[in-house]
Amino acid sequence: MPGQIPFFVPKRTITASEVAGIAGLLFVTKDFLISAGAALETARRGELSYMDNHKYLEALRQTNAGACLVSPRFSASVPKETYSFVTPQPYLIYSRILALLYPGAAIPGSLFETVGISPNATIHASAIIDCGVTIDPGAVIGPRAKIGERTYIGSNVVIGPDVTIGSHSSVGAGAIIAHATVGNHVIVHPGVSIGQDGFGFVPDKGGHIKILQVGGVIIEDCVEIGANTTIDRGSTRNTFIGEGTKLDNLVQVAHNVTIGRHCLIAAQVGIAGSATLGSFVAIGGQTGIAPHLTIGDGAQIAGASGVTRDVPAGERWAGFPARPSRRFFRQYKAMEMLAAGYRETNDR
Amino acid sequence: MPGQIPFFVPKRTITASEVAGIAGLLFVTKDFLISAGAALETARRGELSYMDNHKYLEALRQTNAGACLVSPRFSASVPKETYSFVTPQPYLIYSRILALLYPGAAIPGSLFETVGISPNATIHASAIIDCGVTIDPGAVIGPRAKIGERTYIGSNVVIGPDVTIGSHSSVGAGAIIAHATVGNHVIVHPGVSIGQDGFGFVPDKGGHIKILQVGGVIIEDCVEIGANTTIDRGSTRNTFIGEGTKLDNLVQVAHNVTIGRHCLIAAQVGIAGSATLGSFVAIGGQTGIAPHLTIGDGAQIAGASGVTRDVPAGERWAGFPARPSRRFFRQYKAMEMLAAGYRETNDR
Amino acid sequence: MPGQIPFFVPKRTITASEVAGIAGLLFVTKDFLISAGAALETARRGELSYMDNHKYLEALRQTNAGACLVSPRFSASVPKETYSFVTPQPYLIYSRILALLYPGAAIPGSLFETVGISPNATIHASAIIDCGVTIDPGAVIGPRAKIGERTYIGSNVVIGPDVTIGSHSSVGAGAIIAHATVGNHVIVHPGVSIGQDGFGFVPDKGGHIKILQVGGVIIEDCVEIGANTTIDRGSTRNTFIGEGTKLDNLVQVAHNVTIGRHCLIAAQVGIAGSATLGSFVAIGGQTGIAPHLTIGDGAQIAGASGVTRDVPAGERWAGFPARPSRRFFRQYKAMEMLAAGYRETNDR
Repeated sequence: MPGQIPFFVPKRTITASEVAGIAGLLFVTKDFLISAGAALETARRGELSYMDNHKYLEALRQTNAGACLVSPRFSASVPKETYSFVTPQPYLIYSRILALLYPGAAIPGSLFETVGISPNATIHASAIIDCGVTIDPGAVIGPRAKIGERTYIGSNVVIGPDVTIGSHSSVGAGAIIAHATVGNHVIVHPGVSIGQDGFGFVPDKGGHIKILQVGGVIIEDCVEIGANTTIDRGSTRNTFIGEGTKLDNLVQVAHNVTIGRHCLIAAQVGIAGSATLGSFVAIGGQTGIAPHLTIGDGAQIAGASGVTRDVPAGERWAGFPARPSRRFFRQYKAMEMLAAGYRETNDR
Repeated sequence: MPGQIPFFVPKRTITASEVAGIAGLLFVTKDFLISAGAALETARRGELSYMDNHKYLEALRQTNAGACLVSPRFSASVPKETYSFVTPQPYLIYSRILALLYPGAAIPGSLFETVGISPNATIHASAIIDCGVTIDPGAVIGPRAKIGERTYIGSNVVIGPDVTIGSHSSVGAGAIIAHATVGNHVIVHPGVSIGQDGFGFVPDKGGHIKILQVGGVIIEDCVEIGANTTIDRGSTRNTFIGEGTKLDNLVQVAHNVTIGRHCLIAAQVGIAGSATLGSFVAIGGQTGIAPHLTIGDGAQIAGASGVTRDVPAGERWAGFPARPSRRFFRQYKAMEMLAAGYRETNDR
Repeated sequence: MPGQIPFFVPKRTITASEVAGIAGLLFVTKDFLISAGAALETARRGELSYMDNHKYLEALRQTNAGACLVSPRFSASVPKETYSFVTPQPYLIYSRILALLYPGAAIPGSLFETVGISPNATIHASAIIDCGVTIDPGAVIGPRAKIGERTYIGSNVVIGPDVTIGSHSSVGAGAIIAHATVGNHVIVHPGVSIGQDGFGFVPDKGGHIKILQVGGVIIEDCVEIGANTTIDRGSTRNTFIGEGTKLDNLVQVAHNVTIGRHCLIAAQVGIAGSATLGSFVAIGGQTGIAPHLTIGDGAQIAGASGVTRDVPAGERWAGFPARPSRRFFRQYKAMEMLAAGYRETNDR
């Protein structure tokens, strides 16, 4: 393995005083320059790390980081050569400092360093491309599509007819967007498929009858959609994803699904047809939501769950069939005790 | 969010008498024009909706639809300004009316509104392209591949050497098809990968030895394959998908799998190597089938299950390890009661 | 369905004596030519099959194969017209013979039968392409990318800036590789997405704050990555996949994950952020690993499991929440007995 070139290089340095300011600290006991952010294990003198998870206590104790953002409960474990910024929110402050150091990483940009529109893209004569749009080689933009100001379209992306994409958005290489209206500041990662037919069939003895899918997809502002995720268009109404919602990789969003604002949907979650999620819903990885269910605002579903009933707002559920998390863990505990007794009986 | 253009526009109107005829009703009490199909919540005067799920009873009561196909048990809840077509199969009749109104939605077509073969496609000199084929920009058709009459090949699709695709089929943007023979009236949605190496290794202490995968993939007529689904080619025999079978998005079909006719496989299902499914098998979302198993004709496996044993024909199974659904739910009930008792004991 | 052309044709024949030599057998009772490898069910005279799984006992008894590699316990069931090569490792020996017969199947090559670099590929002027590289039509190679000797880049692949790919590797059609350093003899199957942003947000009442992802991805030699799998780049450290590790299709590898050497990760597994896997770990299909966990060397996790705690080296775990497999199955047994008793009580 050759030595790896870092893909992201800080565009500036930051002083300890600036960090303190961002963290809401009144002063620093000494001032110095920070050149980069880094993990506890790899950070060197001059680099800033953060710590807020007890799993990394040993890494904190052994870090060579020049400085560390750390929550009060771990501050005693910071090595004496590492400068501590003690804050209740180390991760949040760290994110703000990264944004200053690496402004280019905020939104995925051209993988070809294209300026403007690549001559190797295929753009329909009727498409409308706003100012400052970047289009990489191999992209295909269909009839009457509209691409908003400063939006980036990656290589081999396909945009279907009449699709609208807002401004300051980013569509990763190889993504396909059809029958959709996409907002501003949206990030679509590579390999995403949006707007294909939903899975609608009337089962029939002689073979299944396809239900035509004549709805669309609406994706509001500031949504982020992970790599290779699939979002089907609606059958008659639209599939809808609300403002600020974040979907991880390989998520399935079926036809007619409505997802509210600011949800966090982890990788490999499947949301079946016509399910409705409120706002600020969080769903752990690989969980499935059955068709036609309603998940209330602020509900949290653990990963690896299978939800078969409506979940009231604000509740935490887990397991299959999913139930309130407390109940799930109590049942698990009961089963463990039962099995322990069963073993005892068998061992006699 | 700007107002969304509808992506599918009805190509004609339909009279109430025509709807009655399709539904097998003898007469209508008044005749009128229907201009579109729509969901209960969004349908307006002049539009037709349908209702067959008690979850939508409130939506039915409040609908502004001009007319509604409705099953007898819900017919009393149709608002008096909405005309009722009472039928035991509202969804099936609705699907037939959609097919009349939106003939263009029956099978996915060009996202570039290409007529014939795009000059920006790359087609090997030895490939055979039949009459009426549409090929979008960026598609790559390999040596000796055959594309049948009236088939559509999307942008950035890659078709490998010697692949045959029948007539009236549709291959969505970005799909990859290699080492496969594909029938007529097949729909492959965007981002699908067909025909890559199966996952075959002999585990070995010094590293795993790759088993060469020298079979192919056969996909029969009228199969539909969801977005970003993966179908590996066989190791020595072929991977096989029978006529009329429908796969949803993000499904994994491993090497040597045989799927019979008219199966319905929901999203994110994984079918491990050399498993054999009969015909008319239905599998719910996210379920896994272990290697070398046999699932009998007409078996139904609930979503989120993990099947570790053969499933006899016609049975309904659920859970992990999957077992007959009745047994699964009885066990779940028993565990709930046990946990309730356990809590009581603890609460004392 | 027209008769299917075989996609892989043997490049030579092999004698029974050669097979015996590879299997470590001292002699053959007769010599003859073998023209191909085939499954027990389809093999004909002159073709070689193998048998090492009791599920195929009936297929063995009825095979028409000319010869069969068979483990001692099944050798009595080989039909008398089929020549037996008795060996403790039929599958391993079979794999070696396939490698002789079908040398072209060892590593995926051009789907366009391109020689050298297609004029329809888009290659940045600053990219470095070594000798013997094959690049198919529609591929896009970004600035300063390096492609090593004899590596294959498929159609519509996108390689980002500064990416390094070693020698003798293969990148399947439509794969996207950014912010990554990839070793030698690596196979990336179609539709893979490597190096996009990880799923990092600080949840916040007014919407979630994106954590910039400024790490990369390191993929060591001899790794194989299945179709449509996604590998996110690290947030500050790198995501890492060790030498010889094999990932199946539709796997999710989140940011900062470290996977050791020679792991086998089956389809649809999800490995959450910052998890660390040792070497020679095996994970069954659809299993999820929660964030920040450590899975020890040689651990084996059954399919359809959900791992929520560290797994010690060498252990076998199963279920959700995952626990040692013996405990999982004992608990399952206890629940079955409980439910049987519960039914009895209810039936009275």
